[in-house]
Amino acid sequence: MTVADTLTKKTALVILSGGQDSTTCLYWAKSRFQKVLALSFAYGQRHIIELESAKQICHKANIKHEIVDLGAVFQHVSSLTNTNLEIPLANAEHAETLPSTFVPGRNILFLSLAASRAYVLNCDSIIIGVSQEDYAGYPDCREDFIDSMEKSITRGLDRPIKIEAPLLHLTKKDTVELAVQMPGCLEALALSTTCYNGSLPPCQNCNACELRARGFRQAAVDDPLIARTAMLTEVVHARD
Amino acid sequence: MTVADTLTKKTALVILSGGQDSTTCLYWAKSRFQKVLALSFAYGQRHIIELESAKQICHKANIKHEIVDLGAVFQHVSSLTNTNLEIPLANAEHAETLPSTFVPGRNILFLSLAASRAYVLNCDSIIIGVSQEDYAGYPDCREDFIDSMEKSITRGLDRPIKIEAPLLHLTKKDTVELAVQMPGCLEALALSTTCYNGSLPPCQNCNACELRARGFRQAAVDDPLIARTAMLTEVVHARD
Repeated sequence: MTVADTLTKKTALVILSGGQDSTTCLYWAKSRFQKVLALSFAYGQRHIIELESAKQICHKANIKHEIVDLGAVFQHVSSLTNTNLEIPLANAEHAETLPSTFVPGRNILFLSLAASRAYVLNCDSIIIGVSQEDYAGYPDCREDFIDSMEKSITRGLDRPIKIEAPLLHLTKKDTVELAVQMPGCLEALALSTTCYNGSLPPCQNCNACELRARGFRQAAVDDPLIARTAMLTEVVHARD
Repeated sequence: MTVADTLTKKTALVILSGGQDSTTCLYWAKSRFQKVLALSFAYGQRHIIELESAKQICHKANIKHEIVDLGAVFQHVSSLTNTNLEIPLANAEHAETLPSTFVPGRNILFLSLAASRAYVLNCDSIIIGVSQEDYAGYPDCREDFIDSMEKSITRGLDRPIKIEAPLLHLTKKDTVELAVQMPGCLEALALSTTCYNGSLPPCQNCNACELRARGFRQAAVDDPLIARTAMLTEVVHARD
């Protein structure tokens, strides 16, 4: 094993949506890996504004960032990618059925693409911000899926690539508490996007907004995004 | 279970490159499933001519066909997608190393995307034309990868979707013999593209051309593609 091999043994590729969880994962990776890279996907999400967040966060964190454009791959399959479908309100859905915001195969696809990039960029780990506590029963956020996908990727590439999901067993409260511990992370969260509707300030009505607000409330931490966007609103009002 | 459910139980989604193996799989599926759909990918392959083959084959077979454009996802990672790299000649490579034509993660990605489409289109099976006999050690053509990927997809979508690889244990000779048994298949193979260089007539120098030629030779069957393109060449010469 050469020196170069030893160094590249510690490279992480973070799947960065620009939301709260993946931003926290980015800082988690920064605190544990010698080198961190970030990968985002444009897949027709109506909250495309999150990619602007991802860019700003990587700029702030000094992380090399790549956005892969998946075009119309997921068009028409989910309320997250089809503007003719309504985003459900928080608590409006039954736990037994998958919410309309489920994008079938999204994490399978994101992990597959990340694996291909990880292979080329010599990364040992892919970091993904899924949490099976908080995701309304999305099957591609569960541990058994992540474990299975790691095996598939390792077999398909004939190279061991770990999938690490540091938030898998954390609630949103735990995630906020983790963010507080990592230098710079809260400031980066001020730039993140969570709202399914892509609103700025956040709509505070969708499931994603509600989960985020509850986590910060339970951790007794002020959400820096709210403070930042409240200021933006004041500026807009002052211009009126 | 409704009548509609019973009918949709027999729908296959064939991953169709437009090559010999996936064309044979298309006819294999036609002979076994009530409904067959086909999915192709544009991923910057230099043999992009194969997508024209896929279209013509589906038209001939009366199969609904979708092409998903993956843009520049695989750019620069393989001699198949980067025109600055040379396609190796047949037998020029050592079996111990992966050939430069290996596109890392290609079948992981194709199966992931097919899974998402299969979910939306209510297909029970994805058909893929991989063969572990013939593919120069590509790890994503092996049975243990296919088995693992089937588990990952079923877990990630929370719905059982089978991955069927009818050519997995067949040699190219076996595949030709299978094609001969299925009405219309040989005529469709006349429209298929195999050459890694995307040449018409085929270059006959790359690994893919060599494998195809050997299979037809061993099965003692004339390759209808050669007959068709020889005719094309004659026409071109006649015009000179």
